Amino acid sequence: MSKSLYIVKIGGNVIDNPDACARFLSDFASLDGLKILVHGGGKVATQIAARLQIETEMVEGRRITDKPMLDVVTMVYGGLVNKNLVAQLQALKCNAIGLTGADGGIIRSVKRPVKTVDYGFVGDIEEVNEKQIAALLGSNLIPVIAPLTYSDEGLLLNTNADTIASATAVAMGREYDVTLVYCFEKKGVLSDPENDDSVISSLTPESYESYKSTGVIYKGMIPKLDGAFAALHDGVKRVSICHADDLLLSAKSAAGTTITL
Amino acid sequence: MSKSLYIVKIGGNVIDNPDACARFLSDFASLDGLKILVHGGGKVATQIAARLQIETEMVEGRRITDKPMLDVVTMVYGGLVNKNLVAQLQALKCNAIGLTGADGGIIRSVKRPVKTVDYGFVGDIEEVNEKQIAALLGSNLIPVIAPLTYSDEGLLLNTNADTIASATAVAMGREYDVTLVYCFEKKGVLSDPENDDSVISSLTPESYESYKSTGVIYKGMIPKLDGAFAALHDGVKRVSICHADDLLLSAKSAAGTTITL
Repeated sequence: MSKSLYIVKIGGNVIDNPDACARFLSDFASLDGLKILVHGGGKVATQIAARLQIETEMVEGRRITDKPMLDVVTMVYGGLVNKNLVAQLQALKCNAIGLTGADGGIIRSVKRPVKTVDYGFVGDIEEVNEKQIAALLGSNLIPVIAPLTYSDEGLLLNTNADTIASATAVAMGREYDVTLVYCFEKKGVLSDPENDDSVISSLTPESYESYKSTGVIYKGMIPKLDGAFAALHDGVKRVSICHADDLLLSAKSAAGTTITL
Repeated sequence: MSKSLYIVKIGGNVIDNPDACARFLSDFASLDGLKILVHGGGKVATQIAARLQIETEMVEGRRITDKPMLDVVTMVYGGLVNKNLVAQLQALKCNAIGLTGADGGIIRSVKRPVKTVDYGFVGDIEEVNEKQIAALLGSNLIPVIAPLTYSDEGLLLNTNADTIASATAVAMGREYDVTLVYCFEKKGVLSDPENDDSVISSLTPESYESYKSTGVIYKGMIPKLDGAFAALHDGVKRVSICHADDLLLSAKSAAGTTITL
């Protein structure tokens, strides 16, 4: 039987709230067994960019990463956010190690080709080095991964944290029983966006199609769920989506939305 | 016989010059055997702080690290500088992993007590976790260490890169034959600061005292050399100081200043 491994993604909205983030980290630290944390960026990058008088350009909800913005996200995601998460986890006796995709060459990508939109320094993942990540886990380390990857040319590239989480889950799924948990500021996938308690407790491909066709599930939730189903198809054992406060309950299937094939 | 290990410190002035930095990284990548890179900060932190309208206060050549400045050095040293060095080394097929002292708990410090000067968020090193660093080396990783440490309370702390290099060298010296090399923008310790070729090829405690008493060696070189001699006393096999372009020559004792007991 393979070893169990949790891959937990924490969203930027939670990171932006110090109290919520501290509660989440305390729960993450107490989660038993092998684990990896993947974090989003939050609003700090946009705030720092504004103070540096760098404009943030968005197209269809995605940030355009020109060179000045790449430097900002490298500083904020790879430095400020990542290292503060690591230091807080260390204080909780959780042996965290902060990584971008470049560190140990764990996540290699290619700069996204320009089609209709030039996204700039954005990386599409080519390869996750599961052996190197397994070696870190084997050294009793808990990887904390920032949403940055690297290319063969030595470029750092901005990469969506949900995508990093699912690609890492799929790669590690070859050797481990992987549970992928997306933690964010809602209690799960909601059937009524106005009602925080309208959590859909279980989603299958059939019910997902039905919710999409009736418009119940829409917008930003769609790429997240598409990624979740793709991860299950590619060997991840279990995917769930829950509130950052419910990580430990979700691990026992007692909260959030569980996604199954 | 113990395994050999190089610990190379690269100064901020070299990092500030992209061409000099690229040449240095190419040499570092081609250095045979186990190795660790420790890097300084450079001027970028001061520049970013100025653009963020954060004042840089210096006392006796040392930066005062208040909370806004701690965030800047965390972003710049731990993020921008560290991750770009790692990505460039990866492109050179050198399996670098960027770390602060918090990552893997490798360098724990205490916030410097306030005496006559309050240096703010500055850490004095308490412990280097040589077992964790050895485990990373054993996983074929090349640690690239930023000048930041952490405290038991989960604080990140600004720590001098020369001090990190010598403390790491001493700790690793218990299990490895450590060569500590300080690379900077001069060809070594100079007997005439106006003449770049006046390199003192060898320094002993006696000749060091003599050069100090006559004022030949002064100012910023003194803490660096005090650290070098202390490292030798504490079990480091060899210490040298050389130009960043001369790393490979220095490894063969063919350039720079060699410090011996």
